[in-house]
Amino acid sequence: MKTTILGATGFVGQRFIQLLQGHPWFEVTVLAASERSVGKTYADAAHWLMDTSRPDAVGQKTVVACTPEAVEKAGGVDVVFSCLPNELAGPTEEAFARAGLPVISKASAHRMDADVPLIIPEVNPDHDGLIAAQRKARGWSGFISCDPNCSTTPLALTLKPLLPFGVKRVHVTTLQGLSGAGYPGVASLDALGNVVPYIGGEEEKIERETGKILGRLHPEQSRIETAKIEVSASCNRVPVLEGHLENVFVEFDSDVSVSQVREAWDQFQGAIHGLKLPSAQPPIVYRDEPNRPQHRLDVLTGKGMSTTVGRLRSDGPRRIKYACLSHNTIQGAAGGAILHAEVLKANGALG
Amino acid sequence: MKTTILGATGFVGQRFIQLLQGHPWFEVTVLAASERSVGKTYADAAHWLMDTSRPDAVGQKTVVACTPEAVEKAGGVDVVFSCLPNELAGPTEEAFARAGLPVISKASAHRMDADVPLIIPEVNPDHDGLIAAQRKARGWSGFISCDPNCSTTPLALTLKPLLPFGVKRVHVTTLQGLSGAGYPGVASLDALGNVVPYIGGEEEKIERETGKILGRLHPEQSRIETAKIEVSASCNRVPVLEGHLENVFVEFDSDVSVSQVREAWDQFQGAIHGLKLPSAQPPIVYRDEPNRPQHRLDVLTGKGMSTTVGRLRSDGPRRIKYACLSHNTIQGAAGGAILHAEVLKANGALG
Amino acid sequence: MKTTILGATGFVGQRFIQLLQGHPWFEVTVLAASERSVGKTYADAAHWLMDTSRPDAVGQKTVVACTPEAVEKAGGVDVVFSCLPNELAGPTEEAFARAGLPVISKASAHRMDADVPLIIPEVNPDHDGLIAAQRKARGWSGFISCDPNCSTTPLALTLKPLLPFGVKRVHVTTLQGLSGAGYPGVASLDALGNVVPYIGGEEEKIERETGKILGRLHPEQSRIETAKIEVSASCNRVPVLEGHLENVFVEFDSDVSVSQVREAWDQFQGAIHGLKLPSAQPPIVYRDEPNRPQHRLDVLTGKGMSTTVGRLRSDGPRRIKYACLSHNTIQGAAGGAILHAEVLKANGALG
Amino acid sequence: MKTTILGATGFVGQRFIQLLQGHPWFEVTVLAASERSVGKTYADAAHWLMDTSRPDAVGQKTVVACTPEAVEKAGGVDVVFSCLPNELAGPTEEAFARAGLPVISKASAHRMDADVPLIIPEVNPDHDGLIAAQRKARGWSGFISCDPNCSTTPLALTLKPLLPFGVKRVHVTTLQGLSGAGYPGVASLDALGNVVPYIGGEEEKIERETGKILGRLHPEQSRIETAKIEVSASCNRVPVLEGHLENVFVEFDSDVSVSQVREAWDQFQGAIHGLKLPSAQPPIVYRDEPNRPQHRLDVLTGKGMSTTVGRLRSDGPRRIKYACLSHNTIQGAAGGAILHAEVLKANGALG
Repeated sequence: MKTTILGATGFVGQRFIQLLQGHPWFEVTVLAASERSVGKTYADAAHWLMDTSRPDAVGQKTVVACTPEAVEKAGGVDVVFSCLPNELAGPTEEAFARAGLPVISKASAHRMDADVPLIIPEVNPDHDGLIAAQRKARGWSGFISCDPNCSTTPLALTLKPLLPFGVKRVHVTTLQGLSGAGYPGVASLDALGNVVPYIGGEEEKIERETGKILGRLHPEQSRIETAKIEVSASCNRVPVLEGHLENVFVEFDSDVSVSQVREAWDQFQGAIHGLKLPSAQPPIVYRDEPNRPQHRLDVLTGKGMSTTVGRLRSDGPRRIKYACLSHNTIQGAAGGAILHAEVLKANGALG
Repeated sequence: MKTTILGATGFVGQRFIQLLQGHPWFEVTVLAASERSVGKTYADAAHWLMDTSRPDAVGQKTVVACTPEAVEKAGGVDVVFSCLPNELAGPTEEAFARAGLPVISKASAHRMDADVPLIIPEVNPDHDGLIAAQRKARGWSGFISCDPNCSTTPLALTLKPLLPFGVKRVHVTTLQGLSGAGYPGVASLDALGNVVPYIGGEEEKIERETGKILGRLHPEQSRIETAKIEVSASCNRVPVLEGHLENVFVEFDSDVSVSQVREAWDQFQGAIHGLKLPSAQPPIVYRDEPNRPQHRLDVLTGKGMSTTVGRLRSDGPRRIKYACLSHNTIQGAAGGAILHAEVLKANGALG
Repeated sequence: MKTTILGATGFVGQRFIQLLQGHPWFEVTVLAASERSVGKTYADAAHWLMDTSRPDAVGQKTVVACTPEAVEKAGGVDVVFSCLPNELAGPTEEAFARAGLPVISKASAHRMDADVPLIIPEVNPDHDGLIAAQRKARGWSGFISCDPNCSTTPLALTLKPLLPFGVKRVHVTTLQGLSGAGYPGVASLDALGNVVPYIGGEEEKIERETGKILGRLHPEQSRIETAKIEVSASCNRVPVLEGHLENVFVEFDSDVSVSQVREAWDQFQGAIHGLKLPSAQPPIVYRDEPNRPQHRLDVLTGKGMSTTVGRLRSDGPRRIKYACLSHNTIQGAAGGAILHAEVLKANGALG
Repeated sequence: MKTTILGATGFVGQRFIQLLQGHPWFEVTVLAASERSVGKTYADAAHWLMDTSRPDAVGQKTVVACTPEAVEKAGGVDVVFSCLPNELAGPTEEAFARAGLPVISKASAHRMDADVPLIIPEVNPDHDGLIAAQRKARGWSGFISCDPNCSTTPLALTLKPLLPFGVKRVHVTTLQGLSGAGYPGVASLDALGNVVPYIGGEEEKIERETGKILGRLHPEQSRIETAKIEVSASCNRVPVLEGHLENVFVEFDSDVSVSQVREAWDQFQGAIHGLKLPSAQPPIVYRDEPNRPQHRLDVLTGKGMSTTVGRLRSDGPRRIKYACLSHNTIQGAAGGAILHAEVLKANGALG
């Protein structure tokens, strides 16, 4: 299937290009970005930041505008990946959906729309059942389906297997890598040997998105019933390149032992286990060493598609705490979106 | 007064030397360290790591053993500062107390002893009222009084003004600088571009010490009644040189507004305010910018003796969250111990 | 004397404000910056980056435009410090000189003008003898006198005492701190755990400026006779906050021993030694330890106004090599400029 | 072929294990390390530091002593890779060679022995012609062949194609990654936000080894005629994880243009080009961007087996300068040694 990336020149756009190189199902045929880049070759338009070479064929392509017309003129595509800045994403993604294209979006603009699915493929792929209602309500032949904020992913994923125990309240403190802010992003004078205990809008996203992802698709497939979990987040930017580490405190409705939690994680294979999707990896990998997960050692677990968990310990009656780590531009962004597209295709939703 | 530093060659020992240079009350006259250093000049024995020059007079002194006899032979002292490794501190500090000397200790060995005060000068200097009971029980003419773990300090200090609101439960996640592990301490391959979500024994120290510090000296001055606050900590080592940043979630017994908390901090002057001690600084400095405190900008507030607080926000009914930052080897170690000695002297407890 | 800082909101502008706080001779009375900042309070206009607090009085001042008229309207000044971006500095500084003001500039725009002095106060303050010729040629009542690029300073300063030995050729490789690029400057994704072996224009500046600074003022005080030293530079940006470290290889006309070089440095007091200027510090401090100078330990030597030198060793006949380190925003920028102004004032050149 | 790694628990030993996983010719069958590790499983003995998982089969092996007897008892091997600390390597490697085994060594102990080859596979594999003379002189059935210091590799490799132009003198300044010091190696307090302009013994190694590698095997295959190139090195440790960047200034006997140098590099395929060895990659990759090579972007070029070169520029008559970067634990250590073994095997020298 032919695909385009909206926002192809940014850090996450580059990650899409890197991960889609040689992909068995999807080929990047059109590159779209902001006005500043339109008409340039991708090689000229993008300051390549990945640690593998930019594919030559990609470098030679001409960047087009983020409109359905421009993408159509450049040859047309079957699937749209969007990693646009949030302020541009809203109307742009709608235009592509209206033009009949499936839009899989990393942008936050539509995430909390009642008729837009918010998907972690291993957690709630059934929420894509909302798409029919979305099409009907909006009169679109295409659709928009969103992926969560990169710091929401490891939290929601590790909570999912614990839902049967009755998750009541969660305190989460994040230690987030610099790549989450894009490029040029955080100034080095603010990053080197420093922590910034604030990321604008991030805490609200984690607090809102977790309940939607862990919620239940209403039997009529018309809306999501949000999970009743109180989530309180505190977010920090740390001088690490990639990976979001999270310290999580969970309060349950009733007593849960550490071994029950561990068993729930060990047995969790994720909702897409049987589909043998190209980008699928074990969603949760637990490490028994006392000082893990660590960014440097664990962020590439499962090619960056696994959340590494460790330090599970009791925190008194009805409480546990643990740490988890996820690669924010692979599992938490481009990789998660590609896996999402794979699920949709496997389920026949990409036509 | 003449003083010695037990563990003078280590990172915190060096900080003591740096901070005591030109101190109006205390002079470092004897340097004591482990066998490896004994008999060498301090210049040869210590790998100087401060960013100001090693005082020449100190460099020329000969390091002596950590025994009362050796210190006496080197001229004797009036006050002992101990920053020994915990496994050595226990019996060594006792020997000095038995020999009639006041020992102010940064080591954890005796912190939780029922008859040993655990002091943050601005919070609970009255707990030094235990000293008489300690002397009597142990038959010592000297005494031991302890300082808390460096990551306990900013937490206990910022909670102190909130006690009237009924602090019930606290979740704290720390982001701790590398100097807390001493020298050579953390290997650079574990530190650079990485976070280690584990510091051995640290969480237990925070959880235990906070209640003792915030507790009440029994009217008979015989013991501390521990404050009934549940504290749960999660500790991380981050690639920052100095400073411990903490993300704190507090649950109160009843509703408390953000403005009440802010007012409590603004009005807090600390228990030693009137004493005009040489090392005293404003204990709590609140910053209104949305992205503070930061290690690079704030760690030296009040010459490293102030805890900087920010990001106070409501976290639902009966809950708030905030961030605080303290210089771990100044306020949290050498500076705090010196201020502690100043209080003791001002109160006549140093003889 | 009343002073203004052109470019007051940038990193070096902030360093000027920090260093001039409490200065016995100069007071910052007017803050000037680009259009974006004009009319705002300094507190609102500048993202304060120093690790000491912004002086309150400064924060409340209103930023004015970088024109003589605006500065005059704001109360007028006696001395102008310029740390404007190079592309703005040229005509702006000329306007102030034309308006009768002494302009001491950190910008590169006029550095290589034949009638503009390029001064390291300890090296060639006599070059300010050009000012009379400059005024006459340009018809100005004020003047412009420049300071070198921050990476030129430690090289030219350490070569100065070696000139009597006949310096023939120099290879210098720099390892430069991030603050040299200003704010936001280098993106953290380019800085963290990385070296960028390129700084635009930097090598040419070092290669050109060194000869001018080490040159001789023609007896008629009309021009500088450039020193005949071949300088070849290679510049790198390293993940260090402040400080430029340089690895220097020197070839002489004839044999010179390591001890001769060392003696020359030890005896060097700098051209302004007798003047007892407020900001003067020992210009060169040699460290005998084998692994110095280091940014973290040595960059603040002499309050950041000394160049630390080490690792002097023979490199075969007629050759030596060594390492030197200078604080790029103190000695290499704001501090050097202030010391320059102090020399001018001591010599009666500021009126 | 069965292989052992002497020093298997260290950083470079781990790199060997990582790179040999799935190797078509060599299998790690025995792990040898110091007394401290002997008898433990590798999982218990080694603090695994690679960013891919430790192979399970390796983790379960029992570590044996670094003696031919212990290795034989553990099943015996056909090839020995040594990455022992230099002080242990000398007699240990001799014992294995005496016992009839080919020893390919990353240690410096024997590098400068007159009858021991010092090999960069792409540069001087013919120097392994010394092996016969070595065996005869020492009465060994096995042999020792060495690999250079990791900072020598990119220098010698990039100079090799320039030898026809008459390389006379080289000044090289290195910016070396932390992994070169092994684990725990450099303390984080010395590394973070700092540069250490000294690495013990490193400069002498570069200066000595380059001439031997670029020398000529005497026609009688009895000795190496050292290349007459004056090399002067200045070495720095920078806060980067892996990769040694070098700033090189070259003086030739006669005029050489930048385009001639560039052409020489572009045409250089390396001495082993035709052999299609499993680990071979393009030895030199030139990048035209003005700010390359950079550690973060280029260190993994050719899976870490290529030296990336950039910034070639004229430095006056008969002089050029450039920058080059090599992965110090892949190309400069384990990877280079494996490629060396592959050449030996392809040439029938491993029996």
